[in-house]
Amino acid sequence: MSITTATIRNGVDTAQVYGTLDALKEQPELARFEFRVKNRWLEGPHSRSEIHGFWGAGGEDTSRDEAFVVEASEPPVLFGHNEAPNPAEYLLHALAGCMTLTIVNVAAARKVELHEVSCTLTGVLDARGATGLDDSYRNGFEHIRVAYSIRGDAPAEKLREIVERAKSRSVVFDMVTNGVPVDVEADVG
Amino acid sequence: MSITTATIRNGVDTAQVYGTLDALKEQPELARFEFRVKNRWLEGPHSRSEIHGFWGAGGEDTSRDEAFVVEASEPPVLFGHNEAPNPAEYLLHALAGCMTLTIVNVAAARKVELHEVSCTLTGVLDARGATGLDDSYRNGFEHIRVAYSIRGDAPAEKLREIVERAKSRSVVFDMVTNGVPVDVEADVG
Repeated sequence: MSITTATIRNGVDTAQVYGTLDALKEQPELARFEFRVKNRWLEGPHSRSEIHGFWGAGGEDTSRDEAFVVEASEPPVLFGHNEAPNPAEYLLHALAGCMTLTIVNVAAARKVELHEVSCTLTGVLDARGATGLDDSYRNGFEHIRVAYSIRGDAPAEKLREIVERAKSRSVVFDMVTNGVPVDVEADVG
Repeated sequence: MSITTATIRNGVDTAQVYGTLDALKEQPELARFEFRVKNRWLEGPHSRSEIHGFWGAGGEDTSRDEAFVVEASEPPVLFGHNEAPNPAEYLLHALAGCMTLTIVNVAAARKVELHEVSCTLTGVLDARGATGLDDSYRNGFEHIRVAYSIRGDAPAEKLREIVERAKSRSVVFDMVTNGVPVDVEADVG
C-alpha cells in the first residue's frame, strides 16, 4: 500500500506512466491510437455526438461501458437555442483540457506537487469571414489567449518550465497551433 | 404565423439569417465575437470547464442563465478513469458540430430541405510523439477523416456542393486545418 501511494502524484500514477513508456519503447506498435466520434444532426445548429470506443495500446479499448453523449448548438444570436456550447467553445475546451492534463503529467514526472491549475481561454473572430461577407477575415479565431494560474510546491521558474514543456507536448495544442489535414467524404442521396 | 413558418428551413430561420447579414453589412462592428472558457484541474487528467458568457453582435450576450459545465479526462490506458471524453475526442466533436451546422445553414440558404446529416470522424496519432519518445512523430493527429451521410430533397451534385461550401465556411474546419496562433501566459507561485 505504501509503495502504491508513493507512486501517485497529482492523481497521476507515475509508476504506470513509466511502465507504459518502457512498453512503448519495446513495442512501438502499441503507440498507435485511433479516436472516433459519431455525430448526428438534430435541428438547426443542434447536433449530438456519441463518443465510445477507440483503438489504442494494441487493441480496441473496452473500458467504456457506455458512450459519452455530448451536444453542440448555438445561442440565439447565432440562430440556435442554447441547447449546448457552440463548436468554437468546444475547441477551446479541448485545448484547455489537453494543456491542463499535460501540465499535470509533466509536473508529476518532475516530482512537483500541484495545488491549483486553472485557466481562462479567449478566442476572437470576426463573423464577416464565416458568413462570406468579407474574405479578408478568416472563418475561425484570429488568435486564442490562454491565461493560466498555477500553484505548486516548486519555484516559479520551475512551474514556468513545466508550462513550456506542456506546450511542446500537448496533443491538442499541437493540432490547434499547427493544423491537421482533414479529408471529408460525403455519401449523398 | 404562416409568414414565420415559411422562413424556417432545416430548423434555421432564414429570415433571421438574412436580417443578420444585412445588419453586419451596415454595422461591421457587430461582427466581432469573443468566446471564453474557464477550466479548472480536478485530479490526474480530469478537469472541468465552465462556458457561459461571450461578446458578440455589439455587446455581452445575456441569453444563457447558467454556465454549461463540461469535463475532460482520459481512459485508464491513458492514465485516467473515463470521467469524460478526452480532449482529442472533444476536438473531433467540435469539428463535427461545426461542419454539420454549416452544412445545415448552407442548405437552408439554398432552399434545400435536409432529412439526415450524420458523420463519423476518425483521428489517428502515434503516442511516441506526445510522450517525447520519438520526435519524428507529431503530438496530435496525423490526419482526420470525416465521412458524412447526407439525405435531402436535392440532387446528389447539389448536396456535394453544399458540403464543399461548408468546408470553405466552417469556423472550426478553418481552425483545425489551418491552425490558430495561441498565446499562453502563466501566473505561477
